[in-house]
Amino acid sequence: MRYLAARMDKPAAPPKVSFETDPGRYRHWTLAVEGEIARLTMKVQPFGGQDDEVELKSNSYDLSVDIELADAIQRLRFTHPHVKAAVVTSGHDRIFCAGANIYMLAASTHPFKVNFCKYTNETRLTLEEASAQSGIRFLAACNGATAGGGYELALACDEIVLVDDGSSTVSLPEVPLLGVLPGTGGLTRVVDKRKVRRDLADAFSTLAEGVKGKRAVEWGLVDAVAPRSKFAETVLQRAQALAARAPQVARGPGIELDALEPRVSDDRIEYRHVTLELDQASRMAILTVRAPAGEVPRSAAEALARAADGWGIRAARELDDALLRLRFHHEALGLVLLRTAGDRAKAHAVGEMLGGKDKDAWIVRETRLLWQRVLRRLDVTARSFFAVVDEKSCFAGPLFELLAAADRSYVLDADGVELRPGPLSEGLLPGWNGLSRLETRFLSDPARAKAVIAAGREGPIDAARANQLGLATVFADDIDFEEELRVAVEERASLSPDALTGMEASYRFPGPETMATKIFGRLSAWQNWIFIRPNATGETGALSLYGKPERPRFDWRRT
Amino acid sequence: MRYLAARMDKPAAPPKVSFETDPGRYRHWTLAVEGEIARLTMKVQPFGGQDDEVELKSNSYDLSVDIELADAIQRLRFTHPHVKAAVVTSGHDRIFCAGANIYMLAASTHPFKVNFCKYTNETRLTLEEASAQSGIRFLAACNGATAGGGYELALACDEIVLVDDGSSTVSLPEVPLLGVLPGTGGLTRVVDKRKVRRDLADAFSTLAEGVKGKRAVEWGLVDAVAPRSKFAETVLQRAQALAARAPQVARGPGIELDALEPRVSDDRIEYRHVTLELDQASRMAILTVRAPAGEVPRSAAEALARAADGWGIRAARELDDALLRLRFHHEALGLVLLRTAGDRAKAHAVGEMLGGKDKDAWIVRETRLLWQRVLRRLDVTARSFFAVVDEKSCFAGPLFELLAAADRSYVLDADGVELRPGPLSEGLLPGWNGLSRLETRFLSDPARAKAVIAAGREGPIDAARANQLGLATVFADDIDFEEELRVAVEERASLSPDALTGMEASYRFPGPETMATKIFGRLSAWQNWIFIRPNATGETGALSLYGKPERPRFDWRRT
Repeated sequence: MRYLAARMDKPAAPPKVSFETDPGRYRHWTLAVEGEIARLTMKVQPFGGQDDEVELKSNSYDLSVDIELADAIQRLRFTHPHVKAAVVTSGHDRIFCAGANIYMLAASTHPFKVNFCKYTNETRLTLEEASAQSGIRFLAACNGATAGGGYELALACDEIVLVDDGSSTVSLPEVPLLGVLPGTGGLTRVVDKRKVRRDLADAFSTLAEGVKGKRAVEWGLVDAVAPRSKFAETVLQRAQALAARAPQVARGPGIELDALEPRVSDDRIEYRHVTLELDQASRMAILTVRAPAGEVPRSAAEALARAADGWGIRAARELDDALLRLRFHHEALGLVLLRTAGDRAKAHAVGEMLGGKDKDAWIVRETRLLWQRVLRRLDVTARSFFAVVDEKSCFAGPLFELLAAADRSYVLDADGVELRPGPLSEGLLPGWNGLSRLETRFLSDPARAKAVIAAGREGPIDAARANQLGLATVFADDIDFEEELRVAVEERASLSPDALTGMEASYRFPGPETMATKIFGRLSAWQNWIFIRPNATGETGALSLYGKPERPRFDWRRT
Repeated sequence: MRYLAARMDKPAAPPKVSFETDPGRYRHWTLAVEGEIARLTMKVQPFGGQDDEVELKSNSYDLSVDIELADAIQRLRFTHPHVKAAVVTSGHDRIFCAGANIYMLAASTHPFKVNFCKYTNETRLTLEEASAQSGIRFLAACNGATAGGGYELALACDEIVLVDDGSSTVSLPEVPLLGVLPGTGGLTRVVDKRKVRRDLADAFSTLAEGVKGKRAVEWGLVDAVAPRSKFAETVLQRAQALAARAPQVARGPGIELDALEPRVSDDRIEYRHVTLELDQASRMAILTVRAPAGEVPRSAAEALARAADGWGIRAARELDDALLRLRFHHEALGLVLLRTAGDRAKAHAVGEMLGGKDKDAWIVRETRLLWQRVLRRLDVTARSFFAVVDEKSCFAGPLFELLAAADRSYVLDADGVELRPGPLSEGLLPGWNGLSRLETRFLSDPARAKAVIAAGREGPIDAARANQLGLATVFADDIDFEEELRVAVEERASLSPDALTGMEASYRFPGPETMATKIFGRLSAWQNWIFIRPNATGETGALSLYGKPERPRFDWRRT
């Protein structure tokens, strides 16, 4: 406790975590597959987390636990595509999961807290997306106390079964015990997904001890309860029923995902198709994605033959890993230049394959969903993204979406500068708001999005035409281009990082709202605010004093 | 400057402002009506604001300026209902409006900042509601520099005309100059209402000097520009065109709104129909609304005869004023018990009249819209609301909505306890999310909202039936009732005020999102966060250093 108190006064820099793992290396989760049913069992190693001096009691988690969960969901899709229902449960007897570890949170820096919450939110939304689009239904088998982030994990599943043993509850004790909000979409899912009556939701979320048994079912907090003697049987039956009702989608045969193993130095992270250059002095990074060099598969069968080695899967996984490293390891690099390079025809061919005749084939669908997730990860990354379109660049196929996702695009007015949207940009890679990025860009006039697509169907779009079509924020000839970009980069790097984060979050999601945009736009913002209020993280704040004998002392002014 | 610096170190308590005014007392605005066109002219008195030591230069505003604007919009509806278009302009030559006064903001406490932004947001949404529902179109005649909150005021209008004089721009300089966000819905309205391309919106909002002339039109930031020589003529023509296209709704004859003049003491604010009791020790308030005592009008003509003296208008205005006083003058009172009293049949009769055969008549519609606004004000008030339903209470007619708006309802299980929803609760008083409060409550099953309405049609609903219908969060007999309530009040008063604000804001708006819920739920939260980040309000933050020679120094970590 003394050690923790010391840490809370002076938050330690988060250790550099790796986002790569595989089931053979899991410390906290077990993934077991039997026919159409998978079982994901959480048994957190108390001193096996990111920081081996923080005890992860009661199946509470830290980032390292969530990285394994995210990996397991990814592998269900790619390696075990015949699974139709996955049971998420605990390897402990009396506890399902206690949520994020409070001592870890209290000891973390503000940027780490926010990034941690964002990552765990992405993992839960990924789980829901696997249910909706990959046909894998999830059942939370809450075999004991299900608290905070533990209940939020259950909320992300399609069904929740709670053991009825007279003591096990579901609860969101964040407000009453910690003075913060549930950080992984709990509030939103309680009223928006499970549609719990809002006054009962209010009562529930201020009740530290939670709700159990019949009342939990009546309030809509869980789908069913079962006594311990019948729990396993009930869970199995419900999992089988979920599997039987799972969407009929193409499945398999399944591939292994190999390790990415980038070469990492102080100023550079080098993958096979992706390079992240780190410029600490300018507080800027350059993220370059290269088009495939070899032959592009023309069918699902050809793609399957390449398995995880294929560019479509590999480049997306590399981009994802680069974004995560940027978020967690390079907090002060606020601006990212998005560059692309390579053979535009090949990148376009990848897009044609992913959105073409074989688009419903398993490997094609999963590759596309992977790109969808990676691009959505970029959309909620709190960095400015400027796309740079010049002679070398290759904004075609899936890489065209990098341009569409950017906060701004700088297009060089010169011969040989070309870009090309393909079928993927017609709505096959929707953002969090459910629209394609072109629809989001041209919210005032959907015909303009269609005009871009039509132009891409005809062939590569040259710089002048791209500008006419509304794809350039700044369009400049080679006399001005580098200077315009240099000034813009310097200017961006000089602005308040907080104000930019708020502004970008507001501008990236115009138009319709979804549960995801609510979670990221609303809950994340409230949580960010509450996390830095003295009432939570001040010396006498509730989060700081958790587990200590003192009671928190609040500034009572309501805002 | 020395004085301001001293103030910023130790924020002064905001002076107790009155929310009542009338055109004869305006210091900053002039309301002139000529036929169907009104002209609202802003000429802020430099030392005429809330704090007479803060100079409100360049038509920058403080709360006192916005109170006059809100009053003027209210009087357009009630006193000048024949107005079909209102021109919002400035009484200065070269400046339209510079937005909220930065020194006032920088010198304000965090709770005041947040409450100030909330109030100004409500005023702008009210302006949009007057356009949509009262048939008064608004034209922003930007006759000079239109910056920050000035541009946000213009964005709330139906059309924006900017003078084309080679220098006047529209701008949102908050991000580049102040390190905060535009606080009155600017970001949301730029991309969601005006549907500006998001990359151009990004460029615009980081450009301190703004955008002028033809480019402002091309980017969609304004609807038209006109040279100074033709500005007045262009504005008049466009206002006339707006008036000609204004919705055909019942109008007039118009009534005067008298002053409310409550009796205010330390522990009590007493209006004719509303009492607000202030319990500083328990950090709680009791807000009681009494049903009409006299005869209830049965028609629009009878309502018109009573004018502003009628209960429907008077009680709503009193409730509104009480909520504002609570927000600004009693920041530490975190919990409000909503009580009602009086003749249920009469309150129900008011509801039947407001939602009955004369519902499209002018005075009936405006009275209903007034209740809609007041209830929406309650929905975004950062206090916990518990409705208390006992033998004395009168949750009927418009007062039933107080129950539906509450975070919880405590219903006494006893004879003589009755409540009654009427036609107003069938969707005539929608919340910010566009749904009726009963639809929001029963999001999981719209049939349950209909069942409540059906029961109300049959007659008063007794306590047991109300509980069955899902209207009671807690239902207890007289042995337990007071104790349950006492414990709940104590418990609520002990919780983190910040966490409660975030939780309530999340639970009050499940279901569909609207521009208003985006503004309140998303932008308000981001702004709250940014306002207390050291990068804005710390010693070297951009807001703190505004107007000083030093450059802000930022913590560059992006979150």
